[in-house]
Parts: sequence; structure tokens; C-alpha cells
Amino acid sequence: MTFLRLALAQMNPVVGDLSGNAGRIIRTLKKAVKEQADIVVFPELALTGYPPEDLILKPQFIADNMAEMKRISSHAPGITAIIGFVDAGEKGGLYNAAAVISGGKLIDIYHKILLPNYGVFDEVRYFKPGKRVPVYSIPATRPAVRFGINICEDIWHAAGPARQQSLAGAELIININASPYETGKPECRRRLIQQRAAENSVVIAYLNTVGGQDELVFDGLSMVYDHTGCLIAQAKAFAEELMIVDLDLGKTRKYRRLRGLCDKPRVAKTAPALQEIRVPAARVPARHTMRKAGFSGILIQEEEIYRALMLGTADYIRKNGFKGAVIGLSGGIDSSLVAAVAADAIGRENVTGVFMPSEFTSQESREDAFLLAENLGITITELPIGKLLQEYKRSLVHQFEGLAEDITEENLQARIRGNLLMALSNKFGWIVLTTGNKSEMSVGYATLYGDMAGGFAVIKDVPKTLVYRVCRWRNLQREGGVIPARVLVKEPTAELRPDQKDSDSLPPYEILDPILKAYIEEEISFEEIVRLGYDAATVKRVISLVDRSEYKRRQSPPGIKITGRAFGRDRRFPITNRYRSY
Amino acid sequence: MTFLRLALAQMNPVVGDLSGNAGRIIRTLKKAVKEQADIVVFPELALTGYPPEDLILKPQFIADNMAEMKRISSHAPGITAIIGFVDAGEKGGLYNAAAVISGGKLIDIYHKILLPNYGVFDEVRYFKPGKRVPVYSIPATRPAVRFGINICEDIWHAAGPARQQSLAGAELIININASPYETGKPECRRRLIQQRAAENSVVIAYLNTVGGQDELVFDGLSMVYDHTGCLIAQAKAFAEELMIVDLDLGKTRKYRRLRGLCDKPRVAKTAPALQEIRVPAARVPARHTMRKAGFSGILIQEEEIYRALMLGTADYIRKNGFKGAVIGLSGGIDSSLVAAVAADAIGRENVTGVFMPSEFTSQESREDAFLLAENLGITITELPIGKLLQEYKRSLVHQFEGLAEDITEENLQARIRGNLLMALSNKFGWIVLTTGNKSEMSVGYATLYGDMAGGFAVIKDVPKTLVYRVCRWRNLQREGGVIPARVLVKEPTAELRPDQKDSDSLPPYEILDPILKAYIEEEISFEEIVRLGYDAATVKRVISLVDRSEYKRRQSPPGIKITGRAFGRDRRFPITNRYRSY
Repeated sequence: MTFLRLALAQMNPVVGDLSGNAGRIIRTLKKAVKEQADIVVFPELALTGYPPEDLILKPQFIADNMAEMKRISSHAPGITAIIGFVDAGEKGGLYNAAAVISGGKLIDIYHKILLPNYGVFDEVRYFKPGKRVPVYSIPATRPAVRFGINICEDIWHAAGPARQQSLAGAELIININASPYETGKPECRRRLIQQRAAENSVVIAYLNTVGGQDELVFDGLSMVYDHTGCLIAQAKAFAEELMIVDLDLGKTRKYRRLRGLCDKPRVAKTAPALQEIRVPAARVPARHTMRKAGFSGILIQEEEIYRALMLGTADYIRKNGFKGAVIGLSGGIDSSLVAAVAADAIGRENVTGVFMPSEFTSQESREDAFLLAENLGITITELPIGKLLQEYKRSLVHQFEGLAEDITEENLQARIRGNLLMALSNKFGWIVLTTGNKSEMSVGYATLYGDMAGGFAVIKDVPKTLVYRVCRWRNLQREGGVIPARVLVKEPTAELRPDQKDSDSLPPYEILDPILKAYIEEEISFEEIVRLGYDAATVKRVISLVDRSEYKRRQSPPGIKITGRAFGRDRRFPITNRYRSY
Repeated sequence: MTFLRLALAQMNPVVGDLSGNAGRIIRTLKKAVKEQADIVVFPELALTGYPPEDLILKPQFIADNMAEMKRISSHAPGITAIIGFVDAGEKGGLYNAAAVISGGKLIDIYHKILLPNYGVFDEVRYFKPGKRVPVYSIPATRPAVRFGINICEDIWHAAGPARQQSLAGAELIININASPYETGKPECRRRLIQQRAAENSVVIAYLNTVGGQDELVFDGLSMVYDHTGCLIAQAKAFAEELMIVDLDLGKTRKYRRLRGLCDKPRVAKTAPALQEIRVPAARVPARHTMRKAGFSGILIQEEEIYRALMLGTADYIRKNGFKGAVIGLSGGIDSSLVAAVAADAIGRENVTGVFMPSEFTSQESREDAFLLAENLGITITELPIGKLLQEYKRSLVHQFEGLAEDITEENLQARIRGNLLMALSNKFGWIVLTTGNKSEMSVGYATLYGDMAGGFAVIKDVPKTLVYRVCRWRNLQREGGVIPARVLVKEPTAELRPDQKDSDSLPPYEILDPILKAYIEEEISFEEIVRLGYDAATVKRVISLVDRSEYKRRQSPPGIKITGRAFGRDRRFPITNRYRSY
């Protein structure tokens, strides 16, 4: 039996924390040695965190990263380790790289070949593409195992390095990632890895990062597929894990031999740089018996999204060192969801809700806000804004003489609330979590420096109709629910003027959300959207609102990407823009 | 005599305004025909405006751009035109392209080969690199003139297409650009074009865009260098111009022949795709006499920066359709400069200053603010904030019981002022111009939603010491100056608590600014900065402040890039970032 024990370190690095990440890597290395693993694997750019963005342009950052890599090597005598870091090439180029370390020595460095430069990715800004396609052989067992390493985007292309490596005799492909979450992505990745494994008759170990980094959440869900495309191990979603997988590569070799993919490497003509490198066995393999791999469950979509929001929020707060969070509670569904996520993410004792009523605030809103706080077990405090609004109006009485009240006075209310929350933030070191959803962010139904004031926009990428679905899912997790039942059924309102309803200004969310998805996520044209069955005037109005609100979004706090196209780095639009597509 | 009349259309397109830009192009085409030009040239992406960013990912936008290109062609019967647009290749790739139109027909399309993907540029996100290096021959004169076209970045590399084109017999290189302004860039470009012309013994016509687009200002300054590297024509800075240049290419040919660069093309081995394409003469060349080319003056640095700020501000306001601008005047130097720029940019009748005193505001500040307004001829209005601050404190009295006053109360003052300005903005349709300088933006010496609240941050990229220099220059333009003399000499203060001075919190600006330049623009490490002669503790503090303020900058309004590295698209930093370089 030719078997190999693989340890996949699904870890949560902190961007820029080179010594901290190195410490995490070293501790995990030791754990993997204890687990008698032959190879331990760390994610893409595990040492720097992902994405390090323009930190990479600092020569000192690169030098520090190289020094930490050296330090890690000396701590890994008893194992072969594969670790993502930034490699400074000899001619000054930088590479998104994986170090292969064995017996405390650096054996080789793989350079990522295919660099993503779309969506949230800017890798061509920083890295040169790799040119070598090495295959490694490791005598962890007799006969030696042949494996290839590649990084993230490399595996997405059928003709990428995985093809060349398996043609050259690799029985195992180790693919390290920092692949951000979006709805549908876990399933999409599973199908991809399954296909790559089956089409190349090769075992694929797919390792992903986990954790939140500004707008991105990495969901983990590392996995191993065998040479027939069967899932043989699956790590947790949204949590760290050192997943141990025992691979019977004798079976793989036999299967490959029967299919004519024999041990003798067939080097593809397209891979001139392909070479075989021997990795010395770091230790005498222990006579362990083969362990059964773990399978973590696959989540339903609402749970997946809720856990993405939780992890993104928890990590933003934790990694930035805040003492707690404060949220304006209106009694509406958006702030209710944000409060629930926050309480679940950082503990109810660290969350403060603030109810800030005006003359337009209903008794229902008050009851719902206080009931929510009670259900969640968070503190709630009340700060009425009526007198402040009066004082603003008095201050501006000469300037506004003879003019009717309009959006100005509505915005003032939102901005008074923003100021009060920020004052609490300043005084107590809490982060303000804003409560706007994606539907509002899209059409600009939000006040700059008002309800948009805050450090992190938890549900910025969650459309309103999905907010309802996620809330319903959360309520099912506790008898009686946490979000008051009425919040889920009452009509949405901003309560900034008498009897105001969202539907006064916007189409119903059941119509608005699919139009937004078509226009923003799918880049469908005005005419095609109308052809899907939506009223032309409505579509025109929605598109126009989206286009005209770019200036607001540019000043909004970051929030968690959960869709195929979030605002921010994922959708880079000019503010000054006269394109009209209708 | 072999002479060619070239018309370089240094134009100001609006991003996304396809039909508007097409109209501008067509009008200029007609003007060039009247001027009896043989060839008229338009800037890089003149049809879409630059940079169109993710508009390019909209299939409908690309289709509309192709349709407008077709429409333009039919309007150009009497001339050869070269026009920047987005070309949709047959296999679905997009190209940053230049159409060659003659006699109303599309003759060829050049695709930009070298795509910038650093600094403010993201071209790999959108475009594929071109692979063809054509040379065109045009019988505008006898014998025919040979010329090559390339785009922006293409000319920055010595081994780029200009080399191949001139080796293949081109006597003239037409290089179209959308090259953003930064200090020193005009001089840098002049040296570059001079060198390329001389090293290839070729005439180079360098055409740049002009105008403001969000954070970028294009400065124009199009120019023509002859085959010996002599400047023979120079267009205006920061203004539109149709520059007519008559080129005696007979001289160029003779010079090239004498140097062994004969008419017979020597196709470089590195240019397999090089080909010669005949452009039919669009009309019988008129027997015009050679005209003397114009030379616009070169500006001094302070004037250059002032005009960049003026054009950037004017275009942001004009292209986004605002009715006027409102500025909080503190009596300090930053708001004084912003008010002067605004008045010069959009007319003093469209600018309103607001003086918002508190108990900490000095009599000097009041006098200086009102004197500035008088000098500029702008309206000034006064809105005291004392009562509003009292009301906020009263509202928070229970929450803040027993706690000392701190930065919270200072921020509240700034935020009250932000709210008042935004209320005026909402009521009257004015844009709020913020007044923070680069030194403040760097170290976070500014209040989110307070003095950072507004639509456009005019001097966001101007360091404080440069603010003084630019103000002194502006004062020299009018007898007695516009900015009160005292503003230039008094000590900077935010006036948010008794006797506050900037120097309480920050090192003197003469020390702060060079440290910031070293750290931000030059990416010099902590130790190297200390070695330049700065106090280690000060450098450490400055770096730490810069790193910790990223979250504020992420929510700041856009402002005009004038340095080698502005905040925004030019410097992409993670907010969550534990890297400490000291």
C-alpha cells in the first residue's frame, strides 16, 4: 500500500501580520508533525494574508516576508511543508508563490502561473506569472509519490498546470487558495475540482483560506477529490481546521496505469519548463494505519450567508481591535438582522443598540426595537432626536426662509442619528455597524453621513428580499425566533416624514431586486431587462438611480461581499459618467 | 517639399457620453477639414472618455461605442482621421484601439500593445494586448508619407512599437494619450518624447487628452518633436486646442537616408506582425503654404498645480451638473485656497462660503474668513454652532456621565458643521467642497462625516507646505493678493478646543511633509527614513498614523491627484492590516 498522510491547514491569517502568521504556521507545523503527516499544506499567501494589496509594493514588506519564510523553514525539520508567500525573484519580479520545505530546508519554490485580474482581483498589478511547471517526488512511502503544486486560478483552466503535471506523472495535485466566498461559489468549486480530478485521473487536494478581510470572506471548505472525481474529504465552512487525509495513492497509480497514464512521465510539449524535483523524506514514515477522512456538512444558502456575515463581521472587529459594536435600532428588519449577526459574531455582551426616535417614529417601531434587544440579550439605550432637529432648523431659519421642507430635513434626521452613534463610538471605542442593505445601496436610498455613517456595513451586499429570507432562517434556529414576528411582515419605512413608506419612492422589492441583479450582477442591458417582463419606465428609473448613486457608494464603509458582484473593488465605476443605456 | 498638415485635437471628452463625445469629434473633424489638414488625430479613448472603468464590462456600452464609431466614419469624407475607441475583437476580446478612417471608410484599427496595470491604471482588467504593428503610407503628398500609430504606454518602452515602426520606414509616429497630470510629469514626458524621436530619427506627434475626470486631471500639453529631438510645436496646458502643425517630412526622409535609415523598410525580426497598409488620400491636398507652429508656454510648478486644481474642480462640478459650490470657511489657509480655486474655476457668483464659529473660534479667524470672501467676491454666510453643540451634549448627558471631554466633543463640532453644509447642499443643489490637505489625509487629522463630508476634496493630494506655496503664487497674481496676508503667517489650528494648535498633535509640517513623501510616494522603509536625518520616534509615530487612518481615507470624497502617489485608486491599502514596518 502506497499511502500518504496529508495535513491541510485551513487557517485564518491576518493581512500584514507577518510574524503573527509565521507563528500560526509554525504552531500548525508542529501539530501536523504530531499527527504524523507526511506533507502539511498552508493556503495561498498564508504568510502575508490575502489580499495584501499595495503592501506588496513596499520593498521592506517583501524583505520581512522573506525573512519570516526563512524562520519558518528552520522550524520544520520533521515534515514536508508547502507554504504560500511572496517570492522576490532574482530580477526584481515578485511572484505569488508556494515554498516547498523539507527537513528544514527550502527544496523549491512554485510560482503561480495564471494571475486573476478581474472582479476583486488585481494580481497583475503585483505579480509576474510563473513559467516553471515542476513535479515533485517524495519517498514518504515506497514507491515514491509524485505530486504537483499549483495556486488558485491555476486550477480553473483545463489547460493549466494541473494538466501538464498529471501528464508528467503526478498522482496528486495540491492546489492552494485564497478564494473568497459568494453565494453559489462552494458548489461551483466542488464541480470544478471534481472535473479536474476526473479528467486528469489525479487526486486533487484543494486547500482554501478561512476568515474575513475587509470586504472579503474566505469560507474554507477545503476538499479532496480522488482520481475518479469522488469527494473523499471535506473541511468545515467558515472555521479553521487542520484536516488530516490519508491517501491511498497505490490505488491511484494502478488506476492511472490501467488507463495508460503510467509512471513514466509523458511530458507535454506545451510544458518546456516542466521538471522533476526530488523532495527528500523529512522523516521515516511511521507505520500508522489509514485514518478515515472527515466530512463536514454542506450548508443551505441562508445559513451559508448568515455564517459569512458573522465571520466577516467578527474578523473585521477582532482584527481591527474594537472593544464592541453599536447599532442604531429602528425597529425595522435591516437593523434587526445586523444586530443579530453582531450578537452572534462577537457576543451579546459586546453589542449596544441605540433607539433614536423622532416625531415620525411609531409605537410599533419602539416595541419591535426593544423586543429585539430583549430577545438578543443586548443593551438598548434611547436617544430622542426631536430637539436636535429643532435646533438645526432654527440655525438654518434665515437661509431656508420661504422654502418648503424637503429631503433636506429628512437627511438631517439621519445625520443627527449618525452623529449620535459616532459620538458613542468615539467615547467608548465601539465600531458603528451600519444597517443599509444592497437594494438601498444600489438605488441610493440612504443618507451619506447619516445611516451610512459607520465603520462596517454588514449587509451592504445582501438584497432586501434576501434579508427577509436570512432573517426567517435565523428565527428558525431558536424557538420563538429572535427577530420579532411583526418586523418580518410590516411594510418597510424610513420614518423620516409622516406615513412614509419605502414603496413611495421605490418599486416593490420583489420587482426591484431582480432588476438590480440583472443590471448590476449580470450586466444585462436595459432592453433585455424589459424583455424579461419588467415595466420599461420602472427599469429606466432603477438604472438611472443606480448610475446616479455612485458618489454615495464611493464614500460608504466597506461591507461583506456575498454576491457575484459587490460594490467596491468588485465594481469600479466612474462617478462622473454620462452613459445612459436607455 | 514633402509636407503634411497634422491637426492634433487636444479635446476634453466626458466619460460615458458616447453621443456627446462623437458630436465633439465630428465638429472637430469638420474644423480640421476647413484647416486643410491631411490627418486629424483624437486622443486615446476619445470616444468613451478615459478611464471608462467598469463601463467597459457592459456589452451594451461596447456596442454603443462601436455604433458611434461607425457614425463618425460617415462624417469624415474629406480627411484622414485617427480616433481612440474600444474595439470589440472577433473572438470576444476588447482592445484599447485607434481607428484609421479615410474618405469616410475604416481603413485599419491599431490595438494598444503595452497595457499599464500599475498606479491608477487597470488596463489588463479590460483589454487584451494588441499583436499587430502596422505602418501606414498616405499619399497626401508626393512621395507618400509613412507613419505609425501607437497608444500611450506603447511609447514609454524603448523596444516598443515605435522602434519597430521607425525601423520599418515610418517617418512619423503618432502617439495618442490619456496621460494624467502629476507634478513633474510634463517635463518627464518631454524628455521621453525627445529621446524616442532622436533615438529613432523620427518625428513624434504626442497628443494628450485634457480635462478632469473624478480623481484625474489630464493636462493636455500635446507636442511634436522632430527627427533630431527638437520641440517644434507645443499645445496649451489645461485647455482644449486644435493644434495645426505643418511637417516637412522631406527633411526627415533626407536625414534618415543619410543615416542609413532609407525608405526601404527594414522590418525588425522582433515584429512578425508588422505590415504596411496604404491609406488612400482623402482629398486632393490643397497647395497651402507651410504654417509656423504654435508654442504655448511652460508653467512654473505652483501655477501648474493651481491650474490642475481649477480644471479638476471645474470639470467635476460641470460634468456632474451641480448648480454651485459651498465651502466651510474657517479663516485658515486650506479653506482659503479651496475657495480661491472654486471661485476661479466656476465663477465667484457660484460659490458660497459659510463661517461656522464656536466658542473656540478667534476674532482673527472671523476677520480672515470675511476678508477672503470680500477679496474673492463670493457670498459669505454665518452659522454659529454653539447651541447645537450644547444640544448634543444634553442629549448624551446620561451616556457620558462622569466621563471627561475628549476627541468626541471635538468631532461633534466638526460633524455639526458637516451637517450644516450638507443641509445647504441638499436645499440648494450645491456641491460641498471639502478643505482637507494631503498632510491631514495622511495622518488622519480630519473628522469623518465632519470636515471630510462633501462631494469633492479639492486639495486632498496637496501637502500642507505646498498649500502655502500655491497660495503665495495665487496672491502674486493680483495686487494685494486674495488670501489675507495673516492667513499665510499665523499658526495652523483646528479651533476645536481652547488654544489648540496643529503642532500639539503633529510634528511641524516642514518635518511631517518630507516624511510623508518618503513613506507614501517613495515607499522608503522606516530605517531608511530615519537615516535621512529624522527623529526615529517621530517617524514611527507618523507611519503609525498613516497606517491607522486608512479607514478614514476609504470614506473620503474623491480629490485631484497632483503627486506621484495620491490616495484612492493610486494607493490601494487594506484597512485590516497588522503590518508594522518599525
